[in-house]
Parts: sequence; structure tokens; C-alpha cells
Amino acid sequence: MEKRVHNFYAGPAALPTEVLKEAQAELLNFMGTGMSVMEISHRSKEFDKVIQEAEADMLKILGLSAEQYTVLWLGGGATHQFIMLPMNALEKTDTADYIVTGQWAERAHEEGAYWGNAHVVATSKGEAKPYSLLPEIKQENMSDNAKYLHFTTNNTIYGTQFWKFPEAKPGIPLISDMSSDFLSRTFDASKFDMIYAGAQKNIGPAGVTAVVIKKSFAEKTFKKKLPKTLDYNLQIKKQSLFNTPPCFNIYLVGKVMKWILNKGGLTAIEEMNRKKAELIYGAIDAHPEFYKGYVTVKEHRSWMNVNFNLPTEALDEKFVKEAKAEEMVGLKGYRDLGGIRASLYNATSVESVEKLVAFMDKFYKANK
Amino acid sequence: MEKRVHNFYAGPAALPTEVLKEAQAELLNFMGTGMSVMEISHRSKEFDKVIQEAEADMLKILGLSAEQYTVLWLGGGATHQFIMLPMNALEKTDTADYIVTGQWAERAHEEGAYWGNAHVVATSKGEAKPYSLLPEIKQENMSDNAKYLHFTTNNTIYGTQFWKFPEAKPGIPLISDMSSDFLSRTFDASKFDMIYAGAQKNIGPAGVTAVVIKKSFAEKTFKKKLPKTLDYNLQIKKQSLFNTPPCFNIYLVGKVMKWILNKGGLTAIEEMNRKKAELIYGAIDAHPEFYKGYVTVKEHRSWMNVNFNLPTEALDEKFVKEAKAEEMVGLKGYRDLGGIRASLYNATSVESVEKLVAFMDKFYKANK
Repeated sequence: MEKRVHNFYAGPAALPTEVLKEAQAELLNFMGTGMSVMEISHRSKEFDKVIQEAEADMLKILGLSAEQYTVLWLGGGATHQFIMLPMNALEKTDTADYIVTGQWAERAHEEGAYWGNAHVVATSKGEAKPYSLLPEIKQENMSDNAKYLHFTTNNTIYGTQFWKFPEAKPGIPLISDMSSDFLSRTFDASKFDMIYAGAQKNIGPAGVTAVVIKKSFAEKTFKKKLPKTLDYNLQIKKQSLFNTPPCFNIYLVGKVMKWILNKGGLTAIEEMNRKKAELIYGAIDAHPEFYKGYVTVKEHRSWMNVNFNLPTEALDEKFVKEAKAEEMVGLKGYRDLGGIRASLYNATSVESVEKLVAFMDKFYKANK
Repeated sequence: MEKRVHNFYAGPAALPTEVLKEAQAELLNFMGTGMSVMEISHRSKEFDKVIQEAEADMLKILGLSAEQYTVLWLGGGATHQFIMLPMNALEKTDTADYIVTGQWAERAHEEGAYWGNAHVVATSKGEAKPYSLLPEIKQENMSDNAKYLHFTTNNTIYGTQFWKFPEAKPGIPLISDMSSDFLSRTFDASKFDMIYAGAQKNIGPAGVTAVVIKKSFAEKTFKKKLPKTLDYNLQIKKQSLFNTPPCFNIYLVGKVMKWILNKGGLTAIEEMNRKKAELIYGAIDAHPEFYKGYVTVKEHRSWMNVNFNLPTEALDEKFVKEAKAEEMVGLKGYRDLGGIRASLYNATSVESVEKLVAFMDKFYKANK
């Protein structure tokens, strides 16, 4: 049995061991072809099956119909979607609305402002602890003719997560960057006109971004003549195969989709993630003066990224070091916040979190 | 021993079996970390070593100094560079020169024309058989103040390859898309200000493009305020880590770099590719009325992609089918040309080509 550690990295992050084992077994001989999946034409019947199934399975998990929605597989990360979206949707005089709840939301807004008017509907940047909570969102602060309302469901760096999604004004398309909590819980995907997610948190390896897009929205909204691969409508028409896509990355996402379906879909995944969140927030709340959570409004807490600081920086460091000695890795906090960040994406098991929580209890007793 | 076939795909294409075996062995436990390389932060010391070594090894293979050149690892394919280059280099009134020798060169030119004046210096599109040869290139047809001269070293679809590189006017930067013959032969890389190559032909899996760029050229040429990840200067400053790069893809390219160095660098690779080209063109030239090469000027023949048509389409099909039965795959010609295309990238062995050539002889005798 291969040595495997408990992985709490914020991304790239843990992948299901079962998925990696399958990929390993067929790495030199995919489906009996005598080739790796990396060595096969993206226009071969074998790869066609890979990409078609990945899309069908993702839509199935989301409860969306293939008549209404399609999935694009694009390179460049979610950051690239920060650019593609306003580039496709906005003329210079058009307005798009942004909710700014963290660094990635900020970057999305910044790229929006490059192409048109990017209006901030709400932000929690100015809080005493920046982005430590979610701002109140009022429709009266939204633009009447926005081309879309954009928000970030989960904020990887600060550890907030929307449990009640913002509601756009009637007729305004709702778009979300779900990179860090995509497919981690049940939700009504049909409320969205576009959802995108860099794969490297919950659904696969870095290098591919899934863009779930409502076809009628794309047709209606994207009217500009654009460079080819930056044009959503062309990518939809060519089903992500205008040029060679990141084939291996898509293949692995496809395997993660089957893993989710085998687990029982989003209902089962949510149950597992709820258990993990209860465990770790329970450990924090048991000693709030020792494990100081960054996010103080409980209703805004993320199930995916849990930030806390110990009483001193020296203790933060000791915590990370001793946890690592017990094979728990990726716990060092984000550079701007310091402290500890435990990321609990789908592939981080309940057992890993149980181990972390037992360690937290032991560490508290030894260092309080 | 894993079943492996003889792979003649045009891309994604064959990878060295040794490289795949190494990746397979450590797929669940990279460098003793207890994690896959796909599960580790792109800012970890382990991944830092991966990306640094890949760059250093590539520059070493090219004989370039790290003081003068750097390597970017970008998503989106070489097609994305068709866009990024003029977007970064051209104001609307600026001119760039393009040599148009195939479909990819045509697309590069087309994207250039979106951002500025894209001037065609020479093209072989209008030949009786389009792009079946390389056009004559005269400096007198080049623009005086071009921001750069762009050409495609090897034309995957048509099977031509530049053996004598075009010379730009003094002071005009020379830029090449080398996707389909990168690191397949010795050449003077220091003549270029920028070379880019989608990985999936000669250096790795689809999903990452290596952009080798002269730092002084980038500083001098790229002056526009651009969306962040589309800005070469920002990517240089952040060493491709502004956002998460395609980590696994870079890791595999790094392994291919070490494979090339272990083989003896470009001199040894060139020798092997020369042998393969001599074998297959020998077989074509032995029966030119049966194996009708698409490229008739011998000096323009590609060592990477060899196109030929048999006397009838029925024979083309029979050839592909019978070759496949003998475990030679990927030989079906490009859709516009029909016939046969054998791609002989670095990882396609001399043994594979010997087997193909023996088959060609046998097939000729049985069907002439």
C-alpha cells in the first residue's frame, strides 16, 4: 500500500485515491489502446467518449439538461474566465454587477472594469478584518441594466461561503465563480446562467476550468467579434475542440465525476462535508480563545476552507510542524492572514478531519 | 510488460514510455510526499523544484542563458499564443509580418489582423496543391517597421518544414511557432526573440504551451495595459505563477526534458529523427507512383509529419486498417488531404518506423 498523507492543501488539493489508482493503472494503456490517454488524438473515438461522458456526468450531478446547458473545458484557470466573461459580454458602455467578497472576487471585478463598467454591488473589504464576513446584498444597489451579476460562492483565502445565494434583479443573468466549492453540496444550478470552476480544488488537477453555460444566455449575450479561442460562442459550437484541449486534465475530471456519482451524488457529498465541517468548527468553538476563527459570523463560515489563528505566531508554526510530523500537510495559512488554514475539499476524508480534530485537542492541552 | 502500440498520431502524440513509467510509479506518492504531484500546492517547495528544473533543462537543451531568456508555461494551447502575441505587441496602427505556410500559420495571421496590421510576407496557399511547398521569402517583401516577423517552423497538416530559417530585416524580432518540431533537431535558438510550442507533439501532454522569450525583447516590445494573465510581462515577473498553472502538464514536460538530456540532447535527437525520416522517405521514393508524397520539393519535406496518398481512397483505407491490425495507429490523413499521415515525433522510435516501412513494402507488393 502506497504511503498517503492527510492533505489539507487549498489547491491544488487532494484527489480521491480511487481516482488516482485508476489513472495509474491505465497510464500506459488506456482502454486497451496500448497508449496513454495523453497519447491519443483529441479527435479519436476514445477521447470523444471521455469528453462526452465528463460533460454528461457533470450535468447529471448538477441536475441540468443537456438541451439547456453545456460544459466547456478551457485552459488558463478560473482567472482566465475573469477576463473571458466581460470580454465576451461587455461593450465599453455596458455595466456588469459584481459582489466583492475576497481576493478572487476582487480580481474578477478588476478584469470586468477593463472591458466595461464594473459596478460593485456590495463588498466586505472594508471590515476591520477584511472579508471576514459576507456583506449585506440589496437589490436596490444593483444596476437596472447589468449584463450579469457575478459573485464568488466560496472565498478560499478568507473562509466565507454563501449559504443563501444572492438574487439578481428579474431578468439579469446570475453568474458564479464556484472554483472552491463546486460540487461540494446540493444547490439549484438552474438559477445560474453560467458557473465556472478551476478544477484544482474539488474536481480534478490544475490546468482545466469547467464552464457550465446556459446556451440561450450565451446566444443572447455574446455578440462581439472576438479572437477565436476567447469566444464563448465558438467554443460552444466546437464543443471545446476548436484547438487541442487539456485532454488528461479533462479525463481526470471525468473520473472524479464518476466518483461523485458512485458516492451518491451531491446529497451524499454534502452529508460528508457537513460532518467534516461540524468536526472542525466543533474543535474551534470548544476553545475559541485558543483557536481563533477568522470568520466570526457562524452563518458565513465555509465548509471548504477553515482559517484560524493560535495565540502566537510561534504556536502557529509549532502547530503546522507537529501536524506535519503526524502526516497532516498543507495547513499553513495564506500569507496575508498567517495562522492555519485547513481546506476540506471533497477528497479530504472524514477520517483525515477526525485525525486533525484529535490533534487539535491534544495540541490545545499541551500548549494552552 | 504493458501492451504498447506504434503511435503515429499527429498530436496529442507518443510520449516516451520511460517518462510515462516514471510518472506512473509516483502518481500516488510524488518524491515521498505521500501525495500525487497533482495534489501539491503550486507554491510548495516540491513543485517549485519541478517548474524551476523544467525551465533550466529546456534552456540548457536550447543552449540559451537564463540571464537572457525565460520560459513561460501557459494554458490554452499554441492557438492562445496566436492571440497573446499581437495583443501584447501591437497597437491598432502597428504592423507585424507573417509568413503563411499552412493552416496554423494562417490562424496566427488572422489573430494578428484582429489587433493590428498583419502583413503577409509570403504564402504558399495559392499553389495547385495548397501549402505543398514553402514559398520564396524575400526581405524586400517585409515591412520596415514590423513589430516582429512570425513564421511556423513545421507545418503539421501539410508536412513542410523550414530547414533554412527566414531572416528578418536587421533589428526586427524573429518569432516562431515551433509546436510541431520543437526540440526535434539542432538549431540556433539565440536568433529568436520568442519561440512557443504547444506541448502535445514533441514535449509533453496537451494543456501547456512553453513560451521561450527573450527578456529584453519583452521589456522593449510589450507596453500595453492588458488583462493580467494575458500580459507577458506580468507572466514573466510572476514566473507563470500569477495564478495556478497546469502543474501536472509542466511536470511531465520536465520529465521529457530530462529524457532528451539523457539521450544526449538535440544532436542525438536529430540523429534519431534523421534516421526515421530517411527510412520513410526512402520507402516513398522507392515507389513514387504508389506512395504519392504531398510535398514534392524534397528540401521542404518535414521530418515530423509525412503525408502521402495511395492510388485510390479505397487503398488509403485498406492501408490504415491493415496497419492498425499490426498495431500501428494514428495513420489516417488529415481530413482535408485524405490519404496517410505518419507523424514521427521524438517519442516515436526508430523501431516503430522500421516496422512501418516494412509494412509499406509488403503492402506495396500485395496491392500494386
